[in-house]
Amino acid sequence: MALGTSMIIRLQMDKKQVTFGEVAGAIGEAGGDVVAIDVIHASPESTTRDLTVNLPESVREMILQSVGALSGVKVVNVSDRTFLAHLGGKIEIQPKTPVKNREDLSHVYTPGVAKVCMAIHEDKQKAFSLTVKRNMVAVVSDGTAVLGLGDIGPEAAMPVMEGKAMLFKQFADVDAFPICLNTTDTEEIINAVKWMAPTFGGINLEDISSPRCFEIERRLTEELDIPVFHDDQHGTAVVVLAGLLNALRIVGKSLETAKIVVLGVGAAGAACVKMLLSAGARNLIAVDRCGALVADEEYPHEMWNWIAANSNPDRLRGDLTEVIQGADVFVGVSRPGLLSINHIQTMAEDRIVFAMANPDPEIDPEVAEPYVRVMATGRSDYPNQINNVLCFPGIFRGALDCRASVINEAMKVAAAKAIASVVKEDELNELYIIPGVFNDQVVKLVRDGVIRAAIETGVARRVPQEYR
Amino acid sequence: MALGTSMIIRLQMDKKQVTFGEVAGAIGEAGGDVVAIDVIHASPESTTRDLTVNLPESVREMILQSVGALSGVKVVNVSDRTFLAHLGGKIEIQPKTPVKNREDLSHVYTPGVAKVCMAIHEDKQKAFSLTVKRNMVAVVSDGTAVLGLGDIGPEAAMPVMEGKAMLFKQFADVDAFPICLNTTDTEEIINAVKWMAPTFGGINLEDISSPRCFEIERRLTEELDIPVFHDDQHGTAVVVLAGLLNALRIVGKSLETAKIVVLGVGAAGAACVKMLLSAGARNLIAVDRCGALVADEEYPHEMWNWIAANSNPDRLRGDLTEVIQGADVFVGVSRPGLLSINHIQTMAEDRIVFAMANPDPEIDPEVAEPYVRVMATGRSDYPNQINNVLCFPGIFRGALDCRASVINEAMKVAAAKAIASVVKEDELNELYIIPGVFNDQVVKLVRDGVIRAAIETGVARRVPQEYR
Repeated sequence: MALGTSMIIRLQMDKKQVTFGEVAGAIGEAGGDVVAIDVIHASPESTTRDLTVNLPESVREMILQSVGALSGVKVVNVSDRTFLAHLGGKIEIQPKTPVKNREDLSHVYTPGVAKVCMAIHEDKQKAFSLTVKRNMVAVVSDGTAVLGLGDIGPEAAMPVMEGKAMLFKQFADVDAFPICLNTTDTEEIINAVKWMAPTFGGINLEDISSPRCFEIERRLTEELDIPVFHDDQHGTAVVVLAGLLNALRIVGKSLETAKIVVLGVGAAGAACVKMLLSAGARNLIAVDRCGALVADEEYPHEMWNWIAANSNPDRLRGDLTEVIQGADVFVGVSRPGLLSINHIQTMAEDRIVFAMANPDPEIDPEVAEPYVRVMATGRSDYPNQINNVLCFPGIFRGALDCRASVINEAMKVAAAKAIASVVKEDELNELYIIPGVFNDQVVKLVRDGVIRAAIETGVARRVPQEYR
Repeated sequence: MALGTSMIIRLQMDKKQVTFGEVAGAIGEAGGDVVAIDVIHASPESTTRDLTVNLPESVREMILQSVGALSGVKVVNVSDRTFLAHLGGKIEIQPKTPVKNREDLSHVYTPGVAKVCMAIHEDKQKAFSLTVKRNMVAVVSDGTAVLGLGDIGPEAAMPVMEGKAMLFKQFADVDAFPICLNTTDTEEIINAVKWMAPTFGGINLEDISSPRCFEIERRLTEELDIPVFHDDQHGTAVVVLAGLLNALRIVGKSLETAKIVVLGVGAAGAACVKMLLSAGARNLIAVDRCGALVADEEYPHEMWNWIAANSNPDRLRGDLTEVIQGADVFVGVSRPGLLSINHIQTMAEDRIVFAMANPDPEIDPEVAEPYVRVMATGRSDYPNQINNVLCFPGIFRGALDCRASVINEAMKVAAAKAIASVVKEDELNELYIIPGVFNDQVVKLVRDGVIRAAIETGVARRVPQEYR
């Protein structure tokens, strides 16, 4: 199903001239689907109703014309359900307990609050139990690489960060607060986050363009004692690994021996490479505009030099056309249209193609389908969606619950394995390698894997009761 | 009533050996008051109950000993209600609508969110309607001047800022988020707030020590297009003016002619001076350690030079003892114990004394009472409490609702007059010059006054429907 849009049409209908059936009929003929009705006002002569109509964007005007042409119908107002959902923002701050009288006030504010302040002053670690730090993540962006929209600025990035905060709470009961920064300078972003860190138990970096994102994440991880996680990098990488583990099970190949080509070494691509290497991949070749990254070349950023030195064991050179020959797996985190049928046909048997360019994949999934064994994309309208929502709520739930100081590679690999494990052996097939985002097992299992890995690698500062 | 503390005692009681009446009796005899009972577990032989006990701090141990000495009673656990109220923090982030299925997700997150982002990208002002900016205030502190506790650091300041966020929501439906900064450098604080400003519709500075707070507020007001309000300064000043307007009505004197001495020219004192001058006071003398501020002297900070140049028209010199002679009003925002009975006795008839040092006033109100006509303090256990909670929720409610670019002097004076007006002519008396913090008229009237003043002074960027 192609995702359409929806609109809310407020109509005033003269009861003598028109019936609701006629209105619904006109909308249906024009290609819309009435999914909700709210009666706003009713009198013996006329009624005013809000109709929520789902529709493909292309028929919007046609629907309004058809409805407006009916005699006895007046279109009062048209609004967009998506915009309505954003009015005044999508999240709010709520007190956990009401402050109804002087007695309540004396506990949560002056004078009682003073002794809580002093307890934290004497032992700063108590901030993790006596303040929101225990459960609060900052979702930080500078608005430079928002969705597929590019550098749209901090104000325009807010709806994405607010949406992310909703998902954190809804899926994992993590409190998350959006901070969109009015600077794109690496050092200024690092400073801003360091200075505001006392409020937070974790930092989720989001939609910060490459290569600045690497330095920002590395420095913050070193300089803060709370976990820092750039979701565009690691969220994607974790879910790619999860999907790939299951895809390889289907074709009976192993991560250690499969030839894997990763196209696009931006934020997400670089993280996918590192994640796959951490999980055991050996024969992995990373390709960008300059061709395959090879150990003896010098590249403009640190990250590329590191990848060149740690991958491509056969030192393959050349562009995608050359290195994809005989590959078992293609992972695309690049741009639409870069992968052709010819490319795919030179791959090994039982090909696995993850084409995740945003908003359109490296190859149209319907075109590729006959030539590949397992196909995944970033889109919700095809099977096997690689969606970060599968990762970030559970990974932070786990990290916060064990008060992890970082989110390390072991924790990310554990998260990927947990996501993969949600798909049971008897459910696994080419069209179902990764669970849906509303699968309620995901957060539970990711949290568990992350906590165990944090304890094993010594970064958990608190062992939850059930792991003692 | 002196505010005591409270504790929660978990008791296991053997039904054969002891009755609840005996337990309650023992607590009462030791000086405690059982105000709530929660049965945790009950069996035929025993019950476990949580007793919430209010008590003066001094009898805490005695109560526990008395109860523990009863046969058949086991004290399982003792906790502090104030600490319990802080566990995990006092606020949370809530989605305004649930995200239950793919359809919801497509409106609040990808792909629908992209068009909302682009609408803001095309017109940044739309952030005020389509993001949380419409109703979100940052409560920003560096933890250097927290309550009467001093420089306790950002982590330890969090409980106060969280409490403030609760009050913003509870009293005025303003969403407020605490940001405690891990820097005390003036320029760094200014930068941190400027960088995070895209998220917020207003900035409430809090508990930042003087004189840095003046520069921080001035620069942020100049450089941001959203209101910046240092509550310790202006919140106090607004409520002092409100109380003083009503106190002067009682004694039949006018603000314009009264001789007013303000002792203590820190953050709150300086703001009181400016506020009283804005509201029409003329014969005002500000006094600090160096004595009365006089126009022809040179002082270490800008703020003092400004005050010296704009007050003390008779150029009175000397310390408090000298300048308080014949004064109609004393406003203390200094330190405990600085005002004596001798000082008061040299004041004019119908003396008004506002002694607001924290936690103990400049003079004990019970000692001063026989010598003054109207007395106010910052304490909740005496009449006429000067409490900032009367100001900040309503002033930000008004500023946000008219999308004010600043909170100017006219808006603050309007807020003060609104607070004063809550006390009706026939209610006004020496012991009731200022409404209580839970009076539900306060926010409504303050909001109204602030919006009218913002529109009149041309700083409202949106005129709410009811003011058109």
